[in-house]
Amino acid sequence: MQLIEEVERVVHRLESLGKITEESGRLTRTFGSPAMCQANELAGLWMKQAGMTVRQDAIGNLIGHYSCARPGARKLLLGSHLDTVRNAGKFDGALGVLLAIACVEQLRRPVPFNIEVIAFADEEGVRFQSSYLGSRAVTGNFDSKDLDRTDADGITMAEGIRSFGGDPLAVSSCRIDAKELIGYVEAHIEQGPVLEHHHHAIGIVSAIAGQTRVQVELQGTAGHAGTVPMALRKDALCAAAEFTLAVEKQAREIPELVATVGELAVERGASNVIPGFVRLSLDVRHQDDATREAACESLRQSLGDVARRRQIESSWQIIQKTSSAPCSAELSALLREAATKHQPQLMTLPSGAGHDAAVMAKITPVAMLFLRCKNGLSHHPDEWAAPEDIAVALATLSDFISLLAARHE
Amino acid sequence: MQLIEEVERVVHRLESLGKITEESGRLTRTFGSPAMCQANELAGLWMKQAGMTVRQDAIGNLIGHYSCARPGARKLLLGSHLDTVRNAGKFDGALGVLLAIACVEQLRRPVPFNIEVIAFADEEGVRFQSSYLGSRAVTGNFDSKDLDRTDADGITMAEGIRSFGGDPLAVSSCRIDAKELIGYVEAHIEQGPVLEHHHHAIGIVSAIAGQTRVQVELQGTAGHAGTVPMALRKDALCAAAEFTLAVEKQAREIPELVATVGELAVERGASNVIPGFVRLSLDVRHQDDATREAACESLRQSLGDVARRRQIESSWQIIQKTSSAPCSAELSALLREAATKHQPQLMTLPSGAGHDAAVMAKITPVAMLFLRCKNGLSHHPDEWAAPEDIAVALATLSDFISLLAARHE
Repeated sequence: MQLIEEVERVVHRLESLGKITEESGRLTRTFGSPAMCQANELAGLWMKQAGMTVRQDAIGNLIGHYSCARPGARKLLLGSHLDTVRNAGKFDGALGVLLAIACVEQLRRPVPFNIEVIAFADEEGVRFQSSYLGSRAVTGNFDSKDLDRTDADGITMAEGIRSFGGDPLAVSSCRIDAKELIGYVEAHIEQGPVLEHHHHAIGIVSAIAGQTRVQVELQGTAGHAGTVPMALRKDALCAAAEFTLAVEKQAREIPELVATVGELAVERGASNVIPGFVRLSLDVRHQDDATREAACESLRQSLGDVARRRQIESSWQIIQKTSSAPCSAELSALLREAATKHQPQLMTLPSGAGHDAAVMAKITPVAMLFLRCKNGLSHHPDEWAAPEDIAVALATLSDFISLLAARHE
Repeated sequence: MQLIEEVERVVHRLESLGKITEESGRLTRTFGSPAMCQANELAGLWMKQAGMTVRQDAIGNLIGHYSCARPGARKLLLGSHLDTVRNAGKFDGALGVLLAIACVEQLRRPVPFNIEVIAFADEEGVRFQSSYLGSRAVTGNFDSKDLDRTDADGITMAEGIRSFGGDPLAVSSCRIDAKELIGYVEAHIEQGPVLEHHHHAIGIVSAIAGQTRVQVELQGTAGHAGTVPMALRKDALCAAAEFTLAVEKQAREIPELVATVGELAVERGASNVIPGFVRLSLDVRHQDDATREAACESLRQSLGDVARRRQIESSWQIIQKTSSAPCSAELSALLREAATKHQPQLMTLPSGAGHDAAVMAKITPVAMLFLRCKNGLSHHPDEWAAPEDIAVALATLSDFISLLAARHE
């Protein structure tokens, strides 16, 4: 019965946080905004209620400390982020923080390690176009050059940090010593349709997938749609269409690979003009870096083949390349053990979206628990996870702590 | 040797007209502009020098009359247009008018019919987004509702017509009685690469192709490019790519069919979002209306097949449908007879672009002579036709008049 109350409390708190916004009528809570300060204040209050001591670090991460009072004890980090995209849903980030607080709240007994609940100040990177500021600061991966970045109003990140009482010159103090850590565990809505498709409330994350982003350009010859016979055309859009289908075909053939042409623009396109120039984006993700690299190489060759056959020019420019961040086998096994009590059938799935856990993985073992979300929807006001699923996740995380505690006795 | 002089004069006059523009640094001469008045004045002067009496009708068409002084004689219309697109080339339209003037100029003898050289005031329709104003007025196809159309500065077409001394209330007076006409013959650069590809200076036009313009919409499901597995996607862009290639394949299979997807836009496209909605344009042209209609129907079915297989919604909206305007077999045969003296190998090709001849065909037999243009380029400052090719065209048109005269003796 206590669980029901705890879940109701989480749902109620999600509603409360969902109302803290910098834009009226919709939820937007970006890094360093008054809304973020207010969210941290409220979450800090809940942390204290759960028996934690609370601090906010120089970049605005909120950290609740639940002490085991054992000298030299290491700590388990639990958490997620409290910032949002524009016109966001209430679950992305906030749910992970609230589940972590609820775990500690229902613990009410010492465990043989410290627990810290961390609410990262910036995961989405909306305001300064630079994501994971919070976890980058904590892991020592913050780039101080970013302090000069400006938001849409011309305010620098340094000013933004000062505005809420943070200290841009002390970001290095946010760093958590890896030696002190047992690991980092994050619960998050899946942001995809896989769990729902399989009727699973929760799932274990195998890895945060690596990603390659490519800009492809195709230069054919523009011409009059009425006067140039088909045989004499060098249509950049037809070439782009062929490449787009090659991307889809390849991704369908390789298990768990996802590849997407998300943007495609015909330069100076008109209904009566044969497309002369097309620019498109390619996004390729897989949990195994070698698989992703091989897929990209094969797609680059496909592009070359299409271009050669059609006698047009093509270019392939890698915009971004991020390695996969595998979850810890050990922590994930423990999470699985805890989860199977509440959901006997359990799947392991990669996270195609990025998470703070991927940054944390640079310094400590990480594990992630995904919750089913309705229609796979995220970054949208209709984003939703069922209370029943939240209950399964909460029970799993609590049991995970107990299992970990047993190991550390 | 006289021909060389005449060709030099045509080329020189093209240069002179090419300098008459409403935008400094590039050639733009839209309907009713001071530049059009100036062009008409200059062309009118050349018409007079060629022995014609000159008038300008209520909508601004410039008409030079070369009389045979035979009562009841019909008239042969020769011409093209003097307006241009923005940032135009010097040849499109102007060359046809100057060739017609040159034909009369070198005639210097009576023929058994009147000849009128007509320089249409608006073929491109740039200013009021309504093309063929000149030939529509002459054929009684002018829609007086168009007088309320406004240009980018909010000036109505009626005001525009008054501004150069035309009379919007007297557009019906522009009409030429079909009974008075032998036919209309227009020389024009091809605006495509076919003649150049076959190393022909000139070619005979079989018909001005009919055209169907369609707007296609594809509604799939947007989603996160990292989190939605390939098997669960309803990617509108992949569907659009498949359709685009089906269009190309079909057009390649049907002789002389051209079909083009010229515009394609992903709504709210982003590199990390699976395209949910795509809108694209389809342009289908053929000289035979039944062939075009059948091709469109087949493409509509292809679209339906793609959409059904991918479980996405599709819509097919016909935006415009124009019938083919066949050239007169009789006039074209005579033009061919004249042309073969100067170019033994002669091809007949459809015009995929629209021309005043297509409007004139509503009331009188028409024929068209195409001139090779460099790289098939048109509506571009680099548009170019070689003096040698202009010489062949001029000789052909002159001989055509002689052959027609012989028939009318």
